[in-house]
Amino acid sequence: MKKIVVALGGNAILQAGQKGTAEEQLANVRLAAEQIAQLVIAGYQVVLTHGNGPQVGNILLQNAAASPAVPAMPLDICGAESQGFIGYMLQQSLTNTLWERGMSKPVVTVVTQVVVDANDPAFSKPAKPIGPFYPKEEAEKLMAEGLAMQEDRARGGWRRIVPSPQPLRIWEREAIISLIDSGAIVIASGGGGIPVVETPTGLRGVEAVIDKDLAGQRLANDVGADLLLILTDVEAVAVNWGQPNQRWLSAVRLDEARAYQAEGHFLAGSMGPKVAAACNFIEAGGEMAIITSLQTATEALAGKTGTRFTR
Amino acid sequence: MKKIVVALGGNAILQAGQKGTAEEQLANVRLAAEQIAQLVIAGYQVVLTHGNGPQVGNILLQNAAASPAVPAMPLDICGAESQGFIGYMLQQSLTNTLWERGMSKPVVTVVTQVVVDANDPAFSKPAKPIGPFYPKEEAEKLMAEGLAMQEDRARGGWRRIVPSPQPLRIWEREAIISLIDSGAIVIASGGGGIPVVETPTGLRGVEAVIDKDLAGQRLANDVGADLLLILTDVEAVAVNWGQPNQRWLSAVRLDEARAYQAEGHFLAGSMGPKVAAACNFIEAGGEMAIITSLQTATEALAGKTGTRFTR
Repeated sequence: MKKIVVALGGNAILQAGQKGTAEEQLANVRLAAEQIAQLVIAGYQVVLTHGNGPQVGNILLQNAAASPAVPAMPLDICGAESQGFIGYMLQQSLTNTLWERGMSKPVVTVVTQVVVDANDPAFSKPAKPIGPFYPKEEAEKLMAEGLAMQEDRARGGWRRIVPSPQPLRIWEREAIISLIDSGAIVIASGGGGIPVVETPTGLRGVEAVIDKDLAGQRLANDVGADLLLILTDVEAVAVNWGQPNQRWLSAVRLDEARAYQAEGHFLAGSMGPKVAAACNFIEAGGEMAIITSLQTATEALAGKTGTRFTR
Repeated sequence: MKKIVVALGGNAILQAGQKGTAEEQLANVRLAAEQIAQLVIAGYQVVLTHGNGPQVGNILLQNAAASPAVPAMPLDICGAESQGFIGYMLQQSLTNTLWERGMSKPVVTVVTQVVVDANDPAFSKPAKPIGPFYPKEEAEKLMAEGLAMQEDRARGGWRRIVPSPQPLRIWEREAIISLIDSGAIVIASGGGGIPVVETPTGLRGVEAVIDKDLAGQRLANDVGADLLLILTDVEAVAVNWGQPNQRWLSAVRLDEARAYQAEGHFLAGSMGPKVAAACNFIEAGGEMAIITSLQTATEALAGKTGTRFTR
């Protein structure tokens, strides 16, 4: 039985242009659950991880709107909230989808901390924009208080930027493996996990965001998965993206992928971390990584579409 | 090795009169973790559950403050968020506390759904006040939209009231048992669990709040716990509370406790559900239930204080 970690994009749960009601999100999650159920039915041992961009964004807006009457929570706690939120929707939808197909399988969300290095260079150059847009005067006030802010001219406002350090270790690894071994479908490391550093007195949450695909890769290696399936908006990875000589990749070896990456074929905020996650997974002993869209997950596993990374 | 379910009051995490900053809550959780760590060190197999009143209250305020720009989430999702929030703080603090004592043990939070009966009589008489206070005009608007509201004259405003149905079953029971058997300390059924009903197409979240001690009792019986430890603000249960003939109870049999309950000794919103949870636990096969304060947990287990319920 092949063990597969499936990384679901946050946009699979709340799409651009939608208002973000619970009904919309549940309907989207239901569609995602239908795809994932097919993998379960095909006999894969599924571990699920997911993005949280739109949801934690909304939680940050809610925190800002109610502050100072309700003290705003730091990013680690907001991330933990989003894990409860999205994990609940996923576990319920997946349970229901399997139920309709006559399958009864425990589906369970584990609140997950991911260890990062306190000396990760990312901490000295915060680059990931999060939360509400502020006018210039307010942004200056926040910067004076020590927050890093960046102007987004296209969208007309200033936003907080936070570091995006590399994931080192899934802290709840042992419990996740116990659950997988017991036959459960585990949802873990949501939103890239809650970033924590190890200090002499134990774990401590930090104000940062871990890329969810890199954390998903860490999860995949830490639980000894055979496959890593990264689901996104496009059916496959391309080189020379958007240019006349654009070419879809169906199968790439690790060395080829690393070479394309070095040549700058994949954008930092988009395909870059996904390809990095796929490469890291193979390098750390994984059998195959696939990047494809949610709708083509099953076909891609059958080798009919998507981009497959192998050693 | 005795298996014990510990039910922690929401006030142990955020005390009345505090502002509710993350620092305050983490400091409170740390104190609670010190007590719970003592039980782990004493050799108990600990399963932890907790209230979420102050936290879900703040999440509801945040939802109201950002609405309609950010659509407000229903109560089941807000409850799931609070499970992530509080579970994260507890699992991290307990890990750190054990670490300082030279113990390394997985501590893990499971997002938990609790099944209730769609025909529970509570659904026809909502009684549990939640969320923000509204002025009369706004309350009337919300009532016209179908929400049940109640005036709180003492605090000068109207609040939404929701049903508080009986917990029937911990949906994630199987996964929780696997984790306990693997040696993990499990945090589950936070805030009384996310209330769901079973429908022909599967589980569906409902707008309700389950009493956290009754859900904790259900959890204790569902995982086959020997002991149920309900931690609250007072050291023990009393009959004739606040009267000249007030008497502390140190040990009570099930039939005595039921009789006191029937005589109206325990308040509905306070000691009533705790005593009911203790009695239900014994009736369903549990060995002993104890009601005491957080600070006296260890002493109460040694029989030196608290109220002990047995068959």
